[in-house]
Amino acid sequence: LRIRWALEEIERPYRVRLLDALSPRPADYFCEQPFGQVPAYRDDEVQLFESGAILIHLGMQDESLLPADHAARMRSIAWLIAGLNSVEPAIFPLTLIDVFNKGEEWTIGARPKFAGLLEGRLKCLSDALGDKEWLEGPFTIADLMLVTVLRQLRGSEALEAHPNLLDLVARGESRPAFRRALEDQLSVFEQNE
Amino acid sequence: LRIRWALEEIERPYRVRLLDALSPRPADYFCEQPFGQVPAYRDDEVQLFESGAILIHLGMQDESLLPADHAARMRSIAWLIAGLNSVEPAIFPLTLIDVFNKGEEWTIGARPKFAGLLEGRLKCLSDALGDKEWLEGPFTIADLMLVTVLRQLRGSEALEAHPNLLDLVARGESRPAFRRALEDQLSVFEQNE
Repeated sequence: LRIRWALEEIERPYRVRLLDALSPRPADYFCEQPFGQVPAYRDDEVQLFESGAILIHLGMQDESLLPADHAARMRSIAWLIAGLNSVEPAIFPLTLIDVFNKGEEWTIGARPKFAGLLEGRLKCLSDALGDKEWLEGPFTIADLMLVTVLRQLRGSEALEAHPNLLDLVARGESRPAFRRALEDQLSVFEQNE
Repeated sequence: LRIRWALEEIERPYRVRLLDALSPRPADYFCEQPFGQVPAYRDDEVQLFESGAILIHLGMQDESLLPADHAARMRSIAWLIAGLNSVEPAIFPLTLIDVFNKGEEWTIGARPKFAGLLEGRLKCLSDALGDKEWLEGPFTIADLMLVTVLRQLRGSEALEAHPNLLDLVARGESRPAFRRALEDQLSVFEQNE
């Protein structure tokens, strides 16, 4: 979804190659994506993995995703990496607890430990955002990343505790490019159900 | 350590400002580093947080850290982000289990779940590295990042299972720039004990 959204923002056409979510990844896919994850990306210039890197690549080609000024560009990249290394890693253990191991006894003791970390990170993010529209001036790949990271928490008490983060997510989701990307993403699932 | 190492590789002098690890972060530090973490970084051009972003900034200034060719540069950035988003997040829950909550009963049920994920990620990384010296041709910030991420696992069975990853860490640690960086880092701790 992150890459679809970025491509829609810069109105660049793209093709999708699908993987079967219910089968193991084909062995040669690991040559494109060493961890077997999605997405992997290819164009005339690069072959890439990791959504953060793909977003930086696309951002460097269009100022509507990433400012041309080096200092501003690096601020945006710093926020993008914060999404990937300071916010998302605090969400993932809760997904493992609440989704993949739901109801297991050990999760009762584990949950508060991991939830406390996430709450701390969300508070910092909320404080830093304050009443700004986007994280650093205009909309950039930093906002695109943080919105998609925070969407993993939608409906949770942890996110509901921060109205300005809810608003950030809503602003991101109301962008026409996001809506086109989400619609296209969902239609792929529907077609393959 | 990551930033010290990169600065030593390009022989750039720097000054260190220390924070007291035993006190809460000063409130104004959150203006520099929204999550209160270390490091934060400043030079004449940028003010940054997140070690990954600081390494990209430094890499863009010196080809001995990051190739000038865009496609090669982006491959290196992809690996750097993989270190931050696909490898390190699989280590962090085990640190929370084995260090910060050692001996708690819930960790007995939790540990295998989180350890299994890490093992999968390390196998993929090991397969991708194979018998190469560095991840993508010459030494870059990708290797610097992965070596510092994997060092968090030194002495663990998970890392010992992959001799080529152990060798990668050893190659990184044998670089004169790494040794100077580590020595300087440790001397700061000794001076402030």
